[in-house]
Amino acid sequence: MSRDVIAYDLGGTNVRCGLVNEAGEIMFRAKQPVGARPKPEDVVGKMVAMAEQLMGEAAKRHDEVACIGIGSPGPLNSRTGTIVETPNLGWKDVPLARLVQERLKRPTFLENDANSACWGEFVRGAGRGCKTMFILTLGTGVGGGLILDGRLWKGIDDIAGHLGHVVVDPDGPKQVFDNPGSLEALCSATAVIRDARAAAKQHPDSKLASVPAEKIDGKFIEECAVAGDAAAKGLFERLGTHLGIACASFANVLNPEVGVIGGGLSAAWNLYAPSMIREMKRRALPPAGARLKLVKAELYDDAGMTGVAGLALKRALGEL
Amino acid sequence: MSRDVIAYDLGGTNVRCGLVNEAGEIMFRAKQPVGARPKPEDVVGKMVAMAEQLMGEAAKRHDEVACIGIGSPGPLNSRTGTIVETPNLGWKDVPLARLVQERLKRPTFLENDANSACWGEFVRGAGRGCKTMFILTLGTGVGGGLILDGRLWKGIDDIAGHLGHVVVDPDGPKQVFDNPGSLEALCSATAVIRDARAAAKQHPDSKLASVPAEKIDGKFIEECAVAGDAAAKGLFERLGTHLGIACASFANVLNPEVGVIGGGLSAAWNLYAPSMIREMKRRALPPAGARLKLVKAELYDDAGMTGVAGLALKRALGEL
Repeated sequence: MSRDVIAYDLGGTNVRCGLVNEAGEIMFRAKQPVGARPKPEDVVGKMVAMAEQLMGEAAKRHDEVACIGIGSPGPLNSRTGTIVETPNLGWKDVPLARLVQERLKRPTFLENDANSACWGEFVRGAGRGCKTMFILTLGTGVGGGLILDGRLWKGIDDIAGHLGHVVVDPDGPKQVFDNPGSLEALCSATAVIRDARAAAKQHPDSKLASVPAEKIDGKFIEECAVAGDAAAKGLFERLGTHLGIACASFANVLNPEVGVIGGGLSAAWNLYAPSMIREMKRRALPPAGARLKLVKAELYDDAGMTGVAGLALKRALGEL
Repeated sequence: MSRDVIAYDLGGTNVRCGLVNEAGEIMFRAKQPVGARPKPEDVVGKMVAMAEQLMGEAAKRHDEVACIGIGSPGPLNSRTGTIVETPNLGWKDVPLARLVQERLKRPTFLENDANSACWGEFVRGAGRGCKTMFILTLGTGVGGGLILDGRLWKGIDDIAGHLGHVVVDPDGPKQVFDNPGSLEALCSATAVIRDARAAAKQHPDSKLASVPAEKIDGKFIEECAVAGDAAAKGLFERLGTHLGIACASFANVLNPEVGVIGGGLSAAWNLYAPSMIREMKRRALPPAGARLKLVKAELYDDAGMTGVAGLALKRALGEL
């Protein structure tokens, strides 16, 4: 008999659900679309239906479902299990953990999606075996998470680990938040697409300019770079340089062993890793820079469910 | 009877020595010049002579001297007690803790001066009562230290806490190390004096230009600013803005309660604090920015001896 966890990854488009064992393996999966501007009770209904199906699988294996973990974009309060706001879903102050717990009768815990992914890569992914690491997830924004000496670092009010909000270039562009030149404003997929559209205008001969601006997405930019387009390659080099600046700061302040780069854009590793590693080593104190291994995420979309399952189990056992 | 510690603050000009009680109070003090390019054995001789004098004071009080703590500029290896290099003294690979321990027959521990000052402000100074804080010391360089949940954070190789080496403006000037626009390259006393000399040239009507360039030091720049000189005031405002950018990054990544600003330049608090606090609050996630209290150091020169005494006692007791 194993102690399993029902884990959720709540996104803007789908909510995914997994039955995760103590080793962090996702044994069974389910997925439902959340729909546009959904009511919390409708999403909870879908979450419960998927869980009941997976709990059936657990019962067949004579496994016990010990608790529930929900990974969600923030801002959220992981202590009270409340989503403060999710711009993608249009929710405000939704006590999601309580709503799910009332239906599934299991201790239910809510965690930020980037912290969940960080824990997932730490226990089963690119950070396994290390004690101190960070993650950067390059998506719509730049998520971050931090593990210090084997503990997820959450700070005094549970809002640490926002590595995407470090300042990389104070004169840089602004994204959502009034923090110009933050890692998020420079290195998110949103930012790279913005810069690619500008580059297409500036370089009409570039392959980037061969499609209408609104067709330029992360995948197309990567294609252009792989095909040798100089403007597209330059965007990834700059992405690497900016990531390297931030990673050097993390090395100098925290002296970690591993930095994991995840999220959709991270797949284009060969295009940005050389400039990232070069810039990090240039700016880090030499022993801190020599120690820090920058690596590509291994679990990708599964990191969140694996991680939030592990964190939920730790919380259920009073270890966190 | 109290368990006292002999604490040293090894600087480029003087080595100071104190008899520190368990509460972190410096009860007796001594000081000796180190001289130019001194031999390690000569400095050790002076250190031992001062310790013997202070141990006499301890004996009069029937106090026991439990151990020795030495705070020194780095790079150093606090695990082996070896100074790797001190440009100020011209030393390389000096096993200072062992040399002192052989003479004084007490467990002897070496710590980086900024970590020592951080611990001093944490136990008895501007950070007392908090659990998570950082310090920035604005001197020849910018030193840093980090306390996370009551523990001095030293990273995987003992080289964490170099907050002066975070990048603030990647296009900024270079200082010693090839990390342009680091906090140290922008906010050390050295950097502010460099900028003041440039400002004096640019603004010949400024009070800064009323003395020869080589006479412009931190104290004079402060005098000019206090007297209302616009160029000098601008330098402090910019200092505050750069400090605020770095503090926002620390808030977003670590969510600490307190940030202590120490070192010679920090005394001019009223000149740089407004822009520092404004910039930090602008760029920090609102709850992280609201939580972080930026404060002036309280112990100044005594923070190092108080701190290294506390850290040495913890190490002697196996608590660190």
